[in-house]
Amino acid sequence: MKIFVIGLGPGSDKYLTPQAKSAIEESDVIVGYKVYVELISHLTSGKEIVSNGMKQEVERCKLAVSIAETGKTVSMVCSGDSGVYGMAGIMYEVAEHSDVEIVVVPGITAACSGASLLGAPLIHDFAVISLSDLLTPWEKIEKRLLLASEADFAISLYNPSSKKRFDYLEKAVTLMLNHKSLSTPCGYVQNIGRDGETAVVCTLGELKDIQVDMFTTVFIGNSQTKIINGKLVTPRGYKGV
Amino acid sequence: MKIFVIGLGPGSDKYLTPQAKSAIEESDVIVGYKVYVELISHLTSGKEIVSNGMKQEVERCKLAVSIAETGKTVSMVCSGDSGVYGMAGIMYEVAEHSDVEIVVVPGITAACSGASLLGAPLIHDFAVISLSDLLTPWEKIEKRLLLASEADFAISLYNPSSKKRFDYLEKAVTLMLNHKSLSTPCGYVQNIGRDGETAVVCTLGELKDIQVDMFTTVFIGNSQTKIINGKLVTPRGYKGV
Repeated sequence: MKIFVIGLGPGSDKYLTPQAKSAIEESDVIVGYKVYVELISHLTSGKEIVSNGMKQEVERCKLAVSIAETGKTVSMVCSGDSGVYGMAGIMYEVAEHSDVEIVVVPGITAACSGASLLGAPLIHDFAVISLSDLLTPWEKIEKRLLLASEADFAISLYNPSSKKRFDYLEKAVTLMLNHKSLSTPCGYVQNIGRDGETAVVCTLGELKDIQVDMFTTVFIGNSQTKIINGKLVTPRGYKGV
Repeated sequence: MKIFVIGLGPGSDKYLTPQAKSAIEESDVIVGYKVYVELISHLTSGKEIVSNGMKQEVERCKLAVSIAETGKTVSMVCSGDSGVYGMAGIMYEVAEHSDVEIVVVPGITAACSGASLLGAPLIHDFAVISLSDLLTPWEKIEKRLLLASEADFAISLYNPSSKKRFDYLEKAVTLMLNHKSLSTPCGYVQNIGRDGETAVVCTLGELKDIQVDMFTTVFIGNSQTKIINGKLVTPRGYKGV
């Protein structure tokens, strides 16, 4: 009668916490989006695997609850952190009237793993914003981009683009330019912890014209962020080192 | 000629990533604030240990660089994520004119570990703000608290209080109440992954009168956050599950 909602981190075993690994080992059944289930297939031999496609998150949670209610221990796996744009929230909502125990196991989210590859862009206060308007009105996203820029946060953008939303990053950069300068140090990271991992440092002006895919996480510095030896570095305050 | 800047996570081994563990194993010398060095003493037998007190971060980085320049491999250890209010930024600044290679190893930051203990407060866009004005003017912190609240971010507060700054959380809550309601679901977590770990769910109105210590991380929901079976749950958008 237990469901672990597990953040696997970016996808490579080197980011998988011992807590996540032992939760997987303790589980009878692994539930998840098929890409994530495959990432840990070397850890799940002998276990029952239940996977389905994207955009079926609610159904996946209902499935996990119904399996757990038969007395089995279930791991619902997510990439990154299960508590940051992950399945932990829906799981609590879906299981509201069930007696199943839910245990959230955090993982390294892309803001943190991506930041480590670019240098240290998130050393000081920061905001994390998803550009996906699938479940959030675009006006709300615009407001957050504007206010986060006005507050001089370093910003990490999730879901910066997709085939349908090919110009969303450009729109976001245009909004941020109301409060941030063209020369603001920025960067983006693709395929963290997987084949084809890349980290690129650029400026906010350059970011406007860059096409990224949905496996990209974007970072925008604050007014103090600088580039040191090719790395993004945000100081820990405004009063010098 | 290499320095790993390592995020240990909250302090318990269950959060320590394999990447962090193998960086420690590969190192000749471990450098860090003494409390963090002691957290991993069972992993460092036979290694040279260099530790010092709080507020000596720049000196600690200079020491790490000078040791690495003798050809040794050094691990600089931090709690949480080395890239979130951690040592990664100062290390790049201090090592700017050195040939030492710097590798940032991310860890589970308190926003993520704390969120997992409270439920799922950071499922949607969020801001992370430190209330410490040691290196940041308080006016800048006030502005961020106001704008982040106006943007309806879920918010995680680091360093919410100390002996000298006993009323900072109260001041922060008063500012957030300009844009968030008294009944906004909130929570705080103390001693994550250590003895005395506690997680408490409350409202923003109640948070105003609560005394917390410097080992506390505070969470404030967005306008959609609710309490389900005693857990903080932020939905993944504004268009229903």
